[in-house]
Amino acid sequence: MKLATLKDSTRDGRLIVVSRDLTRFADAGEVPTLQAALDDWSAIAPKLARIAERLEEGSHLSEPFDPRTVHSPLPRAYQWADGSAYVNHVELVRKARNAQMPTTFWTDPLMYQGGSDTFLASCDPILAADEAYGIDMEGEVAVIVDDVPMGAPPDQAREAIRLVMLVNDVSLRGLIPDELAKGFGFFQSKPSSAFSPVAVTTDELGEAWKDGKLHLPLLVSLNGSPFGRANAGVDMTFDFGQLVAHAAKTRSLTAGSIIGSGTVSNKRDGGPGRPIDEGGDGYSCIAEIRMIETIEHGGPRTPYLHFGDVVRIEMNDRHGASIFGAIEQTVQRCDGDRRQ
Amino acid sequence: MKLATLKDSTRDGRLIVVSRDLTRFADAGEVPTLQAALDDWSAIAPKLARIAERLEEGSHLSEPFDPRTVHSPLPRAYQWADGSAYVNHVELVRKARNAQMPTTFWTDPLMYQGGSDTFLASCDPILAADEAYGIDMEGEVAVIVDDVPMGAPPDQAREAIRLVMLVNDVSLRGLIPDELAKGFGFFQSKPSSAFSPVAVTTDELGEAWKDGKLHLPLLVSLNGSPFGRANAGVDMTFDFGQLVAHAAKTRSLTAGSIIGSGTVSNKRDGGPGRPIDEGGDGYSCIAEIRMIETIEHGGPRTPYLHFGDVVRIEMNDRHGASIFGAIEQTVQRCDGDRRQ
Repeated sequence: MKLATLKDSTRDGRLIVVSRDLTRFADAGEVPTLQAALDDWSAIAPKLARIAERLEEGSHLSEPFDPRTVHSPLPRAYQWADGSAYVNHVELVRKARNAQMPTTFWTDPLMYQGGSDTFLASCDPILAADEAYGIDMEGEVAVIVDDVPMGAPPDQAREAIRLVMLVNDVSLRGLIPDELAKGFGFFQSKPSSAFSPVAVTTDELGEAWKDGKLHLPLLVSLNGSPFGRANAGVDMTFDFGQLVAHAAKTRSLTAGSIIGSGTVSNKRDGGPGRPIDEGGDGYSCIAEIRMIETIEHGGPRTPYLHFGDVVRIEMNDRHGASIFGAIEQTVQRCDGDRRQ
Repeated sequence: MKLATLKDSTRDGRLIVVSRDLTRFADAGEVPTLQAALDDWSAIAPKLARIAERLEEGSHLSEPFDPRTVHSPLPRAYQWADGSAYVNHVELVRKARNAQMPTTFWTDPLMYQGGSDTFLASCDPILAADEAYGIDMEGEVAVIVDDVPMGAPPDQAREAIRLVMLVNDVSLRGLIPDELAKGFGFFQSKPSSAFSPVAVTTDELGEAWKDGKLHLPLLVSLNGSPFGRANAGVDMTFDFGQLVAHAAKTRSLTAGSIIGSGTVSNKRDGGPGRPIDEGGDGYSCIAEIRMIETIEHGGPRTPYLHFGDVVRIEMNDRHGASIFGAIEQTVQRCDGDRRQ
C-alpha cells in the first residue's frame, strides 16, 4: 500500500491511503497520523491495507490525489539517520581532493545523525539565505522502520523495515569543509530534507525490493533535463538491514525512525561514470559531477544550484509509472523570518 | 511551573504539573502530552500555569509525586542538538592530546546533532553491551524551545526558550576516536541521553536564569560521592540564545526542539580545576578528570563507568531544594534484545 500525509491545520497532518497509480486517495479513518500508525503498526497496518484494497477495487470513497497538497509522509520524525551506502561516491569525494579512503569504509558503514524536526514537503521550496552556501541536492532512498532493539543484527533490522520513500537530502556544500573540520560532523551544512509525496510498503515494490535494496533507477533531473538515473540497487555496499543495524548498535530505535541510503551512485565499468548526455547514468548530486570534473579537468565546471533552479527526483516501476510521486523543489532565497 | 511526563501505556506518556517542592502533582487536564503543550504553547501555558497555582495553594486535586514513575519530560523529541558551550572543556580535550584548539572555537559554537527518538527516563539504567566502550556521563543543562524561524538572531532565539532541564548526555568514549576519524561526527558513541524528571519554565528559576544562562552549580555524584559542582553560569562561552541561533542558522526549529549546553565545566583561577576532595569544583564527566590526569601525570587514573556504578545529576536552588529532581542512573549490561 501507499501512504501519504495530507496538509491540514495540524503540525503532523492527516494520514491518507493513496491508490497505486497515485490518482486517488482515501482517508485513513480512525488513524490520525502516519506516526500513530507506525506506533502500533501490527494492529493498524491490516486496517490500512483493507482501505487500500477497496480503493483499488473502486469500492471505497475517494478523492483526487494532488501531491502538492501533502507533507512529507512524516512531516517531522523522531529520528533521521543517513548512511553513505554507495561507497563509490565516498571514494570519489576523497579522490577529488587526493586523499585515500580508509579501507574500513567498505566494511563499516558511514552514517550521520540528521535533524528531523522540520522536513520539507516534496513540493516545498529549498530555502537558503545565500547561493554561496553551495546548495546541492542529494537523491537517495530511505526506509521507515518499526521499533528496533539495541544491538539488533542486520537480519532482524531488515525485518523491521515498514515503508520506503525517496529523499532529497539538501546539502550546503560551501559550509561542509569548515563544519567537518570542527570535528563534530554536519549541522548547518545539512538543512531540512524533503521526502517523496508517498511512502510505500516493501510488498508494493515487488521484485524490485530484494535483499534490503531497491533495484530501480533513481531519476534525478535539473531544470527539466535528466541529470541522473543511477540504479539504487547497484553498487550499494551496505543494504538497508546493515544500515539500520549500524544505527541501532548502541541504542534502540523508535518506530518511525528514518534511515537513508546516502547519495545513490553507480560506478559502472570500473570508471567514475558519465553524464547522461554522454551516454552514462549521470549523478544524483552536483558534487559528484564536480568531483569527476576536478579529477578530469583539474577543477569543477558545473555550478551548484542557483535561486530559481528546479530539482526533480522520482522513481518509476518497470512499466514507467511513478512509484512514490515526484520530489520537485525550486531553490528560493530565504527571507530570514519564515516560520514553518 | 514545573512539568513532567507520567509513564503510562502510551509511548509519549501523560503530561502532569508538579509542585514547586516536587512532592505533589496534578493532571494537566485536556492537554495529553508535553509535545502537545509545546505545539500550542501560547494557548496552553496559561492553563497549565493556573493548575500550577492551584497546586501550590493546595486547592487542586493532587497525588504524591515519585520521580521513578516519570519519563524524560519529552520521552522522544523531534530535535536534540547539543552544543559545547564550555569551551574550557574543549580546550582541555585538545591539550590532553597536545593539539591546539582553533581560535574560532571561542566565537563559533561547536554543536553536534544528537539522536532524539529514545530518551531515557531519569531513573532508567544506562545500558551498554561492553564496559570497554568507555561509558561516561556528561552533566549538562538543556532548554526546550518554541518554534524558531530559520536565521533567527540570538535575541529572538533566547525569547523562544520555554523550559529548562538537566541532561545526562551519555557518551561511549572508547568509540569516539574511530567514529570522529570517519569525519561525520558522533553516532554510535552517543547513545540515548537521560533528562531530569521535571522541566521548568524560566520564570521558575528567578534570578538564577539570566542572560540565557543558568547561574547555579550542577551537582554530579558518582556512587554517592560528590564528583562535580561546576557552576553552569560560569565559563559558558555561548549562552542558550546563541546556541539556539546556531542551530537555526540554515533551517527552522520546530516547537519542542531541545538544545543542550554541553558538559558544564569551570576553569577557575586560570587553571584546569581541582577534584572536589582537593577543594576544587570537580567535573561533570569522567573524561575531563582523565584529561587533567593525563596533563599532570602522563596518563589517566580514573576509570570510566563500570556496570553497577550509579551516576547522579541534580541542581539545587539557593535554599538547597532540588529544582529539577535528580537524574539517577545505574550502569547495566545490555542483554542485546531489550525493546524500549
